[in-house]
Amino acid sequence: MSANYIQADPYEWPFDGKLCPSNTALMVIDMQTDFCGHGGYVDRMGYDITLTRAPIPAISQLLDTMRTQGYMIIHTREGHRIDLSDLPENKLWRSRRIGSGIGDSGPCGRVLVRGEAGWEIIPELSPMADEVIIDKPGKGSFYATDLELILHTRGIRNIILTGITTDVCVHTTMREANDRGFECLLVEDGCAATDYANHLAALSMVKMQGGVFGAVATSAAIVEGLPE
Amino acid sequence: MSANYIQADPYEWPFDGKLCPSNTALMVIDMQTDFCGHGGYVDRMGYDITLTRAPIPAISQLLDTMRTQGYMIIHTREGHRIDLSDLPENKLWRSRRIGSGIGDSGPCGRVLVRGEAGWEIIPELSPMADEVIIDKPGKGSFYATDLELILHTRGIRNIILTGITTDVCVHTTMREANDRGFECLLVEDGCAATDYANHLAALSMVKMQGGVFGAVATSAAIVEGLPE
Amino acid sequence: MSANYIQADPYEWPFDGKLCPSNTALMVIDMQTDFCGHGGYVDRMGYDITLTRAPIPAISQLLDTMRTQGYMIIHTREGHRIDLSDLPENKLWRSRRIGSGIGDSGPCGRVLVRGEAGWEIIPELSPMADEVIIDKPGKGSFYATDLELILHTRGIRNIILTGITTDVCVHTTMREANDRGFECLLVEDGCAATDYANHLAALSMVKMQGGVFGAVATSAAIVEGLPE
Amino acid sequence: MSANYIQADPYEWPFDGKLCPSNTALMVIDMQTDFCGHGGYVDRMGYDITLTRAPIPAISQLLDTMRTQGYMIIHTREGHRIDLSDLPENKLWRSRRIGSGIGDSGPCGRVLVRGEAGWEIIPELSPMADEVIIDKPGKGSFYATDLELILHTRGIRNIILTGITTDVCVHTTMREANDRGFECLLVEDGCAATDYANHLAALSMVKMQGGVFGAVATSAAIVEGLPE
Repeated sequence: MSANYIQADPYEWPFDGKLCPSNTALMVIDMQTDFCGHGGYVDRMGYDITLTRAPIPAISQLLDTMRTQGYMIIHTREGHRIDLSDLPENKLWRSRRIGSGIGDSGPCGRVLVRGEAGWEIIPELSPMADEVIIDKPGKGSFYATDLELILHTRGIRNIILTGITTDVCVHTTMREANDRGFECLLVEDGCAATDYANHLAALSMVKMQGGVFGAVATSAAIVEGLPE
Repeated sequence: MSANYIQADPYEWPFDGKLCPSNTALMVIDMQTDFCGHGGYVDRMGYDITLTRAPIPAISQLLDTMRTQGYMIIHTREGHRIDLSDLPENKLWRSRRIGSGIGDSGPCGRVLVRGEAGWEIIPELSPMADEVIIDKPGKGSFYATDLELILHTRGIRNIILTGITTDVCVHTTMREANDRGFECLLVEDGCAATDYANHLAALSMVKMQGGVFGAVATSAAIVEGLPE
Repeated sequence: MSANYIQADPYEWPFDGKLCPSNTALMVIDMQTDFCGHGGYVDRMGYDITLTRAPIPAISQLLDTMRTQGYMIIHTREGHRIDLSDLPENKLWRSRRIGSGIGDSGPCGRVLVRGEAGWEIIPELSPMADEVIIDKPGKGSFYATDLELILHTRGIRNIILTGITTDVCVHTTMREANDRGFECLLVEDGCAATDYANHLAALSMVKMQGGVFGAVATSAAIVEGLPE
Repeated sequence: MSANYIQADPYEWPFDGKLCPSNTALMVIDMQTDFCGHGGYVDRMGYDITLTRAPIPAISQLLDTMRTQGYMIIHTREGHRIDLSDLPENKLWRSRRIGSGIGDSGPCGRVLVRGEAGWEIIPELSPMADEVIIDKPGKGSFYATDLELILHTRGIRNIILTGITTDVCVHTTMREANDRGFECLLVEDGCAATDYANHLAALSMVKMQGGVFGAVATSAAIVEGLPE
């Protein structure tokens, strides 16, 4: 295999140029109706969902390109079991402080509960039937899930990360992946936060120390740089 | 037990007021010579270690107070096995890009290798003989270590976090702990980053969504609020 | 709480007498149609399912008793994602050597694939709507699942284990639980193996070294000893 | 790479013939003085250590051969931190029931405590300076350790298991490895149990269902079949 790189910051990615459909996955994190969908929980509370919807076009384009070229696609959903047995008490308490609690009735069913309409991935980014969906109780996609088993089973070493929010679930997943030796790339226009300064800070943190968690690139650079 | 709270942001901590020496630990993360010691690796490269040394007084005071009152103390050290068998290839490659590589000779022995002088915790914050030290190969203190076993074995539910750097190892550990249901408090003057804007952003991220990863307090508020 | 014990071998269980509905769970492991159901995969291959069906009455009685008394009930199912992305290559290869491979068509749908009829828990032991079901890709119930999170979230410290097979999935789960500090009790008439000698050996192994993985009891002793 | 197989039961190992020094490790589990050494804890209690010492010659030969040929060697030690913070309460209680408790004074220092003479690997099988040693608090070598990180970092897919005891620590490790997709081979004359029937049963359990946890071979077959 000849070396393939994507223009990224602070280094051309991946570090070793070993980039191909069989060893690289695209992750789309928590693009769920309650977080960024019209009529979802955040929308109905009166918040502006413009920021969290901003990455949809970039993610769509990456999905189109990487599906066509045979890359592995992995979606995640944050959510809890219907009996809330996997919901730590402090997470429940905090959610109640700031609005409807997890498990309470929301505009699209019980908030953050698996199987409810609000928990579904938005239709614009619907998973295809053969794509992996990771249901996770926390912010990180590795904790309490089968993600690491799947990545090793499929021979994945490189992960391209998109979704929301940059500073919470995307960053936690990137940190978990990086500690396990996976080579990570954060898509700067493919992720977003509810606070724009936090989005920018999260991008900045990745680039410290020569790329402490990996690298950052635009979706355009990825589309241009990906080998089939 | 009567409820005990520490003044914190965005909520009085811990959420349920169940705070006592038997269920609460102080973590001191990666206060190692090569990162913040005089004559260590970062110091000898000509960088200013003023920022990363800034939390030493606050951590010292917390150690004094919490040791006296019988709280559990946990230190961590980032470092690798002498044969580097636990060092992912991309972490090695990145370290070489920006200076001496991990495992190469540095001013205080091989950089980031266990047992070397530079890897030791700085003398100002030396662990006592009966305190737990977690040796970790990554940024998070839970991954590939016995930390979670120890916390459950000791009945710890609340964790007070200090150390360096705020946005890298402290934040990764806080995220891992929070996903596992531990109730976390970040000490704003007890941690620091190499970039001050990243330190501030890391504090800000904790406070989103009603305290998405826990809460933030000053060391003074903790000393004042801790029950014996 | 006064101390409560169940007559067990090699010690009265649990070790500390702290036994009550809020800290104790009953696990029912892999009682699925393809393994022990009429018309399931093992049945249709011409094997005798008498042995693996033998624990059904004991499990039923434990379910009745422990449901009434408010104990937590946890069921598990071994199975794989429909795209087999969580199926290690050697597990697939071995399954093909000895009959229909995992994912191939069987008498009750694709063998060991989630959502298929053969993968369902047998009707005699159907989970109730509010009971936790752990879907696991391996033999152990802790690996790549949210089981540990759930147990800690619910405050469970004691686990009573039933299901099939004694030497494979039940034993692997018991070993994982024991290493994590959970106090385990294996129900000798509530589990079974495809080979009776292996069932007996698995019981014997638990009792070594003063109860190296916990203790063993009959379902009758449990029903008699459980406090409400 | 041409296919290489070792004569094993119930199938030639590894399943895919991909066997070479760069992807295969030898594990030597818990060959510590207190378990099998002259003058160690088990010896001084008056028990016969003939059984647990029986695998020493086979392990020695495998070490000689595989070291020469460049295979990775991994040793493990069961043991606890000096403050016993990683020792579950039930494990301590059980150890006290049957003799000196973990952490108590024994013939070679505190029983099962790291750094004590009894906890060291027996001199006959001393690790070389560049070999990995996994210190584990439990029976399984994956739980609460960096073993999985090391295996993936080094590109290991096949594991040859030796040590003591067959039914406890060796089997637990084999089960954990197998669930993670590693291809495992148990060396029948390279492991032993304190009860010979349990040793035989543990071998038998591996071979069920076409090799549910992997395969079993003699050390002679391995020495003969290993490619350089």
